[in-house]
Amino acid sequence: MNIREIEAAAGRIAGHALRTPLLNAPLLDRLAGRRIFVKAECLQKTGSFKYRGARSAISALSPELRARGVLAFSSGNHAQGVACAAAEMGAPATIVMPSDAPALKIANTRAYGAEVVLYDRDSEDREEIGAALSEARGLSLIKPFDNEHVIAGQGTAGLEIAEQAAEAGIETAEVLVCCGGGGLTSGIALALADRAPRLRVRPVEPEGFDDVARSLVAGSRQTNNRMSGSICDAIVTPSPGVLTFPILQAHCGPGMAVPDADALRAMALAFLRLKIVVEPGGAVALAAALFHAEGDGDVIAVASGGNVDPAIFARALDQMPEDI
Amino acid sequence: MNIREIEAAAGRIAGHALRTPLLNAPLLDRLAGRRIFVKAECLQKTGSFKYRGARSAISALSPELRARGVLAFSSGNHAQGVACAAAEMGAPATIVMPSDAPALKIANTRAYGAEVVLYDRDSEDREEIGAALSEARGLSLIKPFDNEHVIAGQGTAGLEIAEQAAEAGIETAEVLVCCGGGGLTSGIALALADRAPRLRVRPVEPEGFDDVARSLVAGSRQTNNRMSGSICDAIVTPSPGVLTFPILQAHCGPGMAVPDADALRAMALAFLRLKIVVEPGGAVALAAALFHAEGDGDVIAVASGGNVDPAIFARALDQMPEDI
Repeated sequence: MNIREIEAAAGRIAGHALRTPLLNAPLLDRLAGRRIFVKAECLQKTGSFKYRGARSAISALSPELRARGVLAFSSGNHAQGVACAAAEMGAPATIVMPSDAPALKIANTRAYGAEVVLYDRDSEDREEIGAALSEARGLSLIKPFDNEHVIAGQGTAGLEIAEQAAEAGIETAEVLVCCGGGGLTSGIALALADRAPRLRVRPVEPEGFDDVARSLVAGSRQTNNRMSGSICDAIVTPSPGVLTFPILQAHCGPGMAVPDADALRAMALAFLRLKIVVEPGGAVALAAALFHAEGDGDVIAVASGGNVDPAIFARALDQMPEDI
Repeated sequence: MNIREIEAAAGRIAGHALRTPLLNAPLLDRLAGRRIFVKAECLQKTGSFKYRGARSAISALSPELRARGVLAFSSGNHAQGVACAAAEMGAPATIVMPSDAPALKIANTRAYGAEVVLYDRDSEDREEIGAALSEARGLSLIKPFDNEHVIAGQGTAGLEIAEQAAEAGIETAEVLVCCGGGGLTSGIALALADRAPRLRVRPVEPEGFDDVARSLVAGSRQTNNRMSGSICDAIVTPSPGVLTFPILQAHCGPGMAVPDADALRAMALAFLRLKIVVEPGGAVALAAALFHAEGDGDVIAVASGGNVDPAIFARALDQMPEDI
């Protein structure tokens, strides 16, 4: 993969995806003792960066395949991104979700016009259900990260970061990215390696689910021991992707991991100082910038999503640091 | 006043104020049965549009006056806008605030580097205190809305709306603006009258505090009977300004008023669908777009500020409509 594929994706999603702002708050800088810039992908259509990759991948299908429809497995942000992008392009979308997924997420996905197929996590296999649907209807599977057009779509956020950093006078910086399977992180890393090589990407994960950080140290794809138990569920994945990992290896600095409590504190500070709504998994990069970064150089943190239940958001507000 | 002054203000604040995004959410459109676009000024530096006017006015002072310092009366968004802009330009700022202002707002204003002078609302007169300070130190008073450079600064949001509406393919729309003294509303109205005359501005106020709407009907400046009792305190003012009212008369459609409960519901929907934090007074325009507008044409609502206490925000989240 290279920068041309990201540029092509940018052309396909232009006028549909939002050019999200790079936010800064003087009082947040003061708290951190450094300049912190936040790429607010929570403001992206459907509330997360996932729309970029979904629109990129679906728009890259031939008109014939698009008319037959697309398929995705997801109970979260990817489901909403695919459902929304497919509806905009007139492609029927089928989303396979576990029957115990949150009611709001099922309702949102349906509201975008997708058909939701529920399965029982204990007794049914989603791959089998998907394969049967795909064959019967000729659907194209849109994977959440291990797909070149998806990675290229997420990389368009990196093109914007390069431009916005130049406008803000940022010459050298660490770019902290919330990392699950690595689609967003590898896309941004590819874009910046070409456009702004002095901006170095570092993946950020929830503590205890740092498969990417460990994989970068080991030099091979490592897995997480468990898949649940973090409030940052949106970015918990079994291991880095087959396509994303070599890109992460080639272009990223060491990974970082932050505890759930810091993600919640970062959400509270994003509310107070930036006026954005960030979900726990979307706040780990900001948490790393605020509480775990070394030195006093400029930091750019990607706030990757904002799809959070009101009850969890209220819990974050209770974590407001005392000394602000 | 004319468009040249707004253009000049745009030149002075360029690179300092954020070009805030025009947000849209398909599921919000679906709920409203029309396209709703939100100009997210809550994302502006200091959490409200007030920074634009403050930076515009302070940057228009001569270097000598700026070096002597600036003065403002405010317990809210204007205080933070002036304090931040003044600090950036090396101008000492003195902010006169009531001693019973919320502790967080006093702390924020001080954190930007301003000197806060507290007065007792019952026994002291803020005008006298301000006049004495101004004379002793040679300070320039930055009024919150009745100042041409402030109006021009707020009008820069209108220049952006005109450009962003064209990019989004919006040809004709109502532009609903949260209205207190009318600085933001008149500035945007002046800008749009020149740049996008098919976008018609309408002021939106809290129910029971609709001095601007009544003034537009009467053809002369009317006053509110009371100054407290609305959760939308940031936009409760005694009457439209001397400078702003003729502009509102010349360029705005009829005013609208919304109850506090609708402002809270709009805050909840902005959280859910747009991922922005909006304060009650900053949510009245979105509330009008969602719950009070007639017809099905495009609407642009300005979300003017996001400086809200966590407790009030939590109360808004409790108002989440059931049928979303």
